[in-house]
Amino acid sequence: MNYCSNCGQSLTYHIPPGDDRSRHICESCGLIHYQNPKMVVGCIPELEDKILLCRRAIEPCYGKWTLPAGYLENGETVSAGARRETFEEAQARVEILAPYALYNICYVNQIYLMFRARLMDRHFRPGSESLEVRLFSEVEIPSDEIAFRVIEETLVQYFKDRRTGLFPFYIGNIYKKNLQ
Amino acid sequence: MNYCSNCGQSLTYHIPPGDDRSRHICESCGLIHYQNPKMVVGCIPELEDKILLCRRAIEPCYGKWTLPAGYLENGETVSAGARRETFEEAQARVEILAPYALYNICYVNQIYLMFRARLMDRHFRPGSESLEVRLFSEVEIPSDEIAFRVIEETLVQYFKDRRTGLFPFYIGNIYKKNLQ
Repeated sequence: MNYCSNCGQSLTYHIPPGDDRSRHICESCGLIHYQNPKMVVGCIPELEDKILLCRRAIEPCYGKWTLPAGYLENGETVSAGARRETFEEAQARVEILAPYALYNICYVNQIYLMFRARLMDRHFRPGSESLEVRLFSEVEIPSDEIAFRVIEETLVQYFKDRRTGLFPFYIGNIYKKNLQ
Repeated sequence: MNYCSNCGQSLTYHIPPGDDRSRHICESCGLIHYQNPKMVVGCIPELEDKILLCRRAIEPCYGKWTLPAGYLENGETVSAGARRETFEEAQARVEILAPYALYNICYVNQIYLMFRARLMDRHFRPGSESLEVRLFSEVEIPSDEIAFRVIEETLVQYFKDRRTGLFPFYIGNIYKKNLQ
């Protein structure tokens, strides 16, 4: 962040009066440019004993499998965002069942919110960001080819909970690999 | 948003190829400036049968009562954010008990995440953004002087759940008043 998005002047970076951390500040128009985490919303689309995964057609993690998820848009509820991402990536329609897990990924300033969802029918096919879309039973999950650690953790938690039939809302953290 | 925060050139506003909504785009350096909802995190600090409210020393809603809450910062977990806001606004230390409610406030691009929390002790006093900080039993809550509708709804839901002793995670929506 180098220039003020409001007036186009150069920004400085320091702690504003009354604040406790550095911000990008425009000395010309006075605007403080706060930066905040982004929410990623997605779901675990269930159909009978299987769940739907998408094989990524884009970087990062091209060719790896993931749950449908993406950035929440302005003006959108969290469940509408999860439904939209599922349609974009798998052309699938889901009914959102319940919020399932929230993951803090502090080192990339992301908060993941994953829902459990029910596939409305068997009509699904790859959207433009997917190479392939498939239903997997637990034993079929390609564990060594999952795109992101947050998706790995969501799947592990989900199949653990599925054995009990209880899905309490879960909060977890994903840490930088070299800090673990 | 008028200028590119990366290179300082003027922005255009249109739908990028492969996208489905208009974005602020820099034709000079190519950067697309996505805008996404912000998370507000806060808590209901409990002590015995009372909860802590703060009377706002800042606009909007100067002089009205609220639960401690504020924007999640980069690099922060949602529960750390709720603890920080409680300390800033009420100089109070809390233990986060459980996530309690998420509210979509789409018309201002905010997602509120409220936790139930336990006050660690009786040491609390107004932070710089509060005029007054007080414990209230249910009958004492100043219902006509609550700062925001999302806080009103959180409190109504909370006292309803408290009668049953069960606090399932709740997702709600706050709509623009003139649309209701």
